Amino acid sequence: MAPPAEPRRRGRPGHDQAAVLATAVRLFNERGYDKTSVYDLAVALGITKSSVYHHVASKEQLLQMAVDRALDGLFEAAGEVRGLDVPALEKLEQLIRRSVIVLSERFEYVTVLLRVRGNTEVEQHALARRREFDALVTELVKQAQAEGGVRPDVDPRTAARLLLGMVNSLTEWYRPRPGGAESIADAVTALAFDGLRA
Amino acid sequence: MAPPAEPRRRGRPGHDQAAVLATAVRLFNERGYDKTSVYDLAVALGITKSSVYHHVASKEQLLQMAVDRALDGLFEAAGEVRGLDVPALEKLEQLIRRSVIVLSERFEYVTVLLRVRGNTEVEQHALARRREFDALVTELVKQAQAEGGVRPDVDPRTAARLLLGMVNSLTEWYRPRPGGAESIADAVTALAFDGLRA
Repeated sequence: MAPPAEPRRRGRPGHDQAAVLATAVRLFNERGYDKTSVYDLAVALGITKSSVYHHVASKEQLLQMAVDRALDGLFEAAGEVRGLDVPALEKLEQLIRRSVIVLSERFEYVTVLLRVRGNTEVEQHALARRREFDALVTELVKQAQAEGGVRPDVDPRTAARLLLGMVNSLTEWYRPRPGGAESIADAVTALAFDGLRA
Repeated sequence: MAPPAEPRRRGRPGHDQAAVLATAVRLFNERGYDKTSVYDLAVALGITKSSVYHHVASKEQLLQMAVDRALDGLFEAAGEVRGLDVPALEKLEQLIRRSVIVLSERFEYVTVLLRVRGNTEVEQHALARRREFDALVTELVKQAQAEGGVRPDVDPRTAARLLLGMVNSLTEWYRPRPGGAESIADAVTALAFDGLRA
């Protein structure tokens, strides 16, 4: 008589949901989200399409998980900064610095987030959370202006968008390397808060 | 007897090559280059596909014309700045300011350029010209550092990329309006050269 069957494993050993997500995010960035199919993902993982569906319900769920991983990092940083007992200018500087660190540590996830243009519900939700984060940064610029920490002649919303534009541009040309996040964060904050002029 | 035939007009009246290009660029930005067909373009223009081919040889030619229009503007600005008899810091500031103006005036064309990821020859060529422009900006930062105009503690290449990252981010959130280019250029150069700190 054959031994009793082992409980069936979900997916192939070594391919948990996190691994599926990491590979999906790499493919989204290489080929674009629209051009990546669940079949492509299965091939890249060396498993069957139905094994992929053991781990995730849909390609859209993977997009949701990817953008949430990026956005959660940014909102955690904003939460930590809010609790600091320092002037608004320093909170703003800390938040920009931490945004660079999040971008560096969750590079592929933030890259997916920044390419979202927004047709589906998942994409619309991601864009709404990005706007919410922009608004937090704008609010900090306003507070810092009120406290006299930020120059009064810049529009807070424009300043926030230029700051985040500079940070987000890292996905276009920066490649994370061990220990590199701190030095790129130094360069961003030096330029943003003190300017290039000697 | 019928009068001699007039020489046949190319395309429909009012649809010259510039109009075809402008509509193509709008569609590329709305739908993505890959998802825009010559048929879509004909529909948007209200002409036939073969009328489109009176004006342009291919979709790829339209992409080439679009990215060249953006890049030519940037290189013209660089050429003008090179001829100025001022310190390198001021040349750099002028080039960043003029890049903002070019981006504002050729907004849709620069947006197409910045979304090019580069598989085809046209795209590779556009990316090579972008790198060439980045190198010009890096060179100006280096010269300005040598002259003592730019702080010595930033890497020139990183500074150039952050400057252009900030400028290029405008395609994501800025919408050109009459007279708006100068004030956004002021905000960019204020932040980049003197920083946000009061």
